[in-house]
This record gives sequence, structure tokens and C-alpha cells, in this order.
Amino acid sequence: VRLGVDIGGTKTDAVAVDSTGVTTQRVRLVTGFGSREVVETAIAAILKIADLSGVDPGGFESIGIGIPGMVDSAAGYVRHAVNLGVDGLNLGDAIAERLGVGVRVENDVSAAALGAYYGLGLTSSMAYLNVGTGLAAGLVINGELWRGARGAAGEIGHIPVDPNGALCGCGQRGCLETVASGSGVARVWTSADQYPVRALFEAADAGDTRAREIRAKLAGGVAAAIRVLVLNADVETVVIGGGLSHLGERLLGDVLDVLSSWSATSPFVASLELASRVQLVPNDFPAAAVGAALVGGTLSGVA
Amino acid sequence: VRLGVDIGGTKTDAVAVDSTGVTTQRVRLVTGFGSREVVETAIAAILKIADLSGVDPGGFESIGIGIPGMVDSAAGYVRHAVNLGVDGLNLGDAIAERLGVGVRVENDVSAAALGAYYGLGLTSSMAYLNVGTGLAAGLVINGELWRGARGAAGEIGHIPVDPNGALCGCGQRGCLETVASGSGVARVWTSADQYPVRALFEAADAGDTRAREIRAKLAGGVAAAIRVLVLNADVETVVIGGGLSHLGERLLGDVLDVLSSWSATSPFVASLELASRVQLVPNDFPAAAVGAALVGGTLSGVA
Repeated sequence: VRLGVDIGGTKTDAVAVDSTGVTTQRVRLVTGFGSREVVETAIAAILKIADLSGVDPGGFESIGIGIPGMVDSAAGYVRHAVNLGVDGLNLGDAIAERLGVGVRVENDVSAAALGAYYGLGLTSSMAYLNVGTGLAAGLVINGELWRGARGAAGEIGHIPVDPNGALCGCGQRGCLETVASGSGVARVWTSADQYPVRALFEAADAGDTRAREIRAKLAGGVAAAIRVLVLNADVETVVIGGGLSHLGERLLGDVLDVLSSWSATSPFVASLELASRVQLVPNDFPAAAVGAALVGGTLSGVA
Repeated sequence: VRLGVDIGGTKTDAVAVDSTGVTTQRVRLVTGFGSREVVETAIAAILKIADLSGVDPGGFESIGIGIPGMVDSAAGYVRHAVNLGVDGLNLGDAIAERLGVGVRVENDVSAAALGAYYGLGLTSSMAYLNVGTGLAAGLVINGELWRGARGAAGEIGHIPVDPNGALCGCGQRGCLETVASGSGVARVWTSADQYPVRALFEAADAGDTRAREIRAKLAGGVAAAIRVLVLNADVETVVIGGGLSHLGERLLGDVLDVLSSWSATSPFVASLELASRVQLVPNDFPAAAVGAALVGGTLSGVA
């Protein structure tokens, strides 16, 4: 049995996954803010799954943790996990010290890519397109995570596609993320709703012209991200995940409409058959936690 | 000893490569136009290398052929090699019938990627960015060609990056290829010179304002292609090849200037260290022929 933890900005998911890939236990905790609280949350999640599984933390085949930010998997080190209040943290060492077990630390989008790949039973290549506060993808090629030569694979949110687009936080202009993300929407659509993009969709449905424009731009950006992924790595499948994937068929329908309109004007785009290669991550499937459990491999944090 | 042939629009290169990867023989022929002449050119190249090497065509460990167009490597079939006057051709079968040997047929940019990877002694991941009449890349990941799930990997020339850009032959607008290719330049800069892009550079050097603008756009497009490759597959090295790579340091210098200007305004782009990851394919290195020799693997065309 393997154990996986996904430390998100508000919630932490943890699962136990058996040797056939089936999730046998699952818990959800509120994520603490700051390095110390993040470590405590991870430890609480591990102990809870261990308790439910009836084994000690040391009894799992592997323990993996997915977390946002820049992750050095070999060292178990996390940088710039802004939403968690973590600037620099050796999560691997911190957990090893407390629990006496080694853990594998992985970027959450990469972990989710692996989890979705196995969870959906895919067998070829795949990109997991995380449409959340930001926009990034995880790539699975030949059944393995491709992190890139320097860990930047899938950072497609910062590919500029419009010289006259909005200035991005990265210092460039017109990045995909400026339209195809929650932060991109928030910059042009102010909402007090807990789920501002859902509120945007509802305003668009109610006929608000500006909401319709912003919603169309969001769909166009997600579609452009899918095109970028296929025209570069040519992955067989693009799975849409992340916070905005909870919009479900409404988001997917918009995106498929854009892909369809492109195919109508470009035989080349039509030949890529993009629409048939896109799917949503199943609602409530804890892709990153399952992926963290499966990422296994070498463990960090144990001397 | 392996034998590789690169069938180009005007010239066909062929090489013999020994077990250590060293090119032991090399010939260059004029490429015939049309399916029948292309087959004759390939056969002449194979026989010439066989003669120089002192072995029969059947005596090579493998024979590979790189050719433009859509290539089905398993079947040895080539489609849409427009510059060669080839619409559909089973090159593998045609050569097997005449010479009694199996050959591996590969897209020329993919072959060049593999040739450059080994020829330059690279060991991580690499993209071979072919800047020629069109714009496309070949990807080498974990030491192997990554052709993609459906053979479209590296088709980055058709990623749109400017909603107000020129209409591309593919039916989309503002594709990278509309600025970063020979055909992209030809559409806005008419020249009777045999090498129109070289003529463009000379006009720009002589102070022609319009030539300067077009040259700057070309460099910006090549730089954007490099950024796309790194932000998607995160290859360690991008090798610039193709017809326009013969502009050498003049093209590379322009591109490095663009990358440098981006780094000045974006710490994110600066962190990618793009400039240090780019190099030109060595002048006169027959990357596609060497790659075709090395691509080996399963042979097609022998029943």
C-alpha cells in the first residue's frame, strides 16, 4: 500500500492506494498556513491514513507528497509555494525527522498528471492541464512523468500569445495565463462570490455582455493551451483539471466550441482532432494525492 | 557500418557512419523531382556510399532515409513532400524492390534532431529547431526521438502567437512560421537573390528600414519558438538548424539579443537561461543524413 498527500491552498487530500491502484482510504483536512503549519498538516494527514489503514507510517511501500511551488524532488525541498505561505521548506527532512520515514516530494501539478494518467486508465501520452489560479501542465510521456531538463516542463502558462495582451506577473505580455486562469479572470472581473469564475459564467448566462466576452476569452485561452500542448509534445490526451475544472461541462463545452470553430477554418487544425483528445478530470477524483502515492521511486529525507 | 540518406529539396546527402558514430563516407547528389526521380536519387546515393565503403547495400547494419513531409515510419510511406513533387510514395517498398534491402524512412527534421543530438555529443534532452522554408522542431527526450502520439510533435510553426498576424497557409493567423521561416520572410520581402534571407540581412546591414524590421521580426519569431520549446518540453538544449541556420552567427546574434532583452524585463524568462541553451548546428554537418543512419531500429520494406 502506498500513501499520497496533496497539500492544496485550502484543503489537503490524502489517500492510501493499493497495489492495483485502487484508493482504499481517503481523508481531507484543512491546510494550515505557513511552513510550520504545512508540515503539521502533512503529518496529520499521514498519521490519519496510517491509522485508517491499520499500519505504521513506516509500513507503507512509499509516501509521496504533492505541493504547489518549485519543488526539488531529489532534495525534498519546496520554494515559492505562495498560497501556502511557504517561501523555502525542506518538507522531506521535516517529515523524516518527525515520523522517521522518507517521503517523495513532487510538484502538485506533476503529481496530478501521474494520478490522472493512471486513474483514467490512459496508456499513451498525456498532458494534465491545470486551470486554477495559474495555468500549467504536467506531462506524461511513455508512462512516465516528464519534468523537463530543469523542471520547467509544462510551464505553458507563460507562453505569450498576444503582443497586445495584458501584462503578466512574470513580466511578459499576453501570456496564456493572463486569460486562461482564475487570476486572469480576477484581473478583469471583480466578484465577491466565493467562486468568482462560476459567478462570471452565471452573469454570462444571464446576458451580461462583458461577462460573455471574458468567458469567451477564457475558453479561447484554454483551447490555445491545448493546441500548444499538442503541437509541441503531441500528447494523445489532454486532461483538464485544477480549480476551474469544477465548472465541468460548461467550461468544456465552451472550449470544444472554440476548437470546433478553429477546425472549420483550418484543415490543419481539423487534422489534429483536438476535440476528441480533451477530457475533464473526473469530479472529486483526488488526482494529485493518488499521483503522489504512485510517484514513489527514490525516497528523499532519509539519511 | 550504417548508411543514412537525407533527401532535401535540392540536394541529397548520404553518409556511412561507423559503430563509434564517426562519418566515414559522404556524398552529395542533386535531388530529382517527382516520386520516380526521388527513388532514383535515393538508390544512386545508397549505391555510391556502398561502393565507397566497399560493401553491398545489404551489408550495412541499417539504412535510413530522411525526407520532408508526413512520414509513416512503420510503413515507409511519405505524403505531402511538396518541394520534392511527391504526393504519396512508398519509399521503403520502392527501394526494397530495387535493392533487396530494408530501409527505415523518417521525417527529415526528426532525423536531423537525432543526428545533431549524437553529433554534438549531447546527453540530456534537445530540440532541433529547423528554420527553413517552414518552421518545425524535432525532439529528443531521454536519448530517443519523441515523435508524439500521432507524429505531430514539434509542429510548433503552427502555434499562433499574434491575433493580428499574417494569415498562415494552415488557415490560422499569426503562426510562428509566418515570421520565423524563409516562406514567412518571402511573403513580405521580395528578392531575386538565390538566398533571399541573406539578401534581407545585407539590406538591413546597409540601413534599409523595412529590411531591419523584417529581420527583427524573424529573430523575434525564432526566439519565441525557443521559448515555446523550453516552456513546454523543457529541453536542455535548442539546436538551430535548417536553411536559415547558414546565416550563422548573424542570425544567432539577433536571436540572442532578443532573448537578452526579454530577460531584462522578466525575471521569470531570465531564470530559464535561454541564451546559454541555444546553439547553431555546425555548418556543413549533415545532421539529417547522420540521424537517418542512426535511427536504425526496425526496418520497413522487407517482407
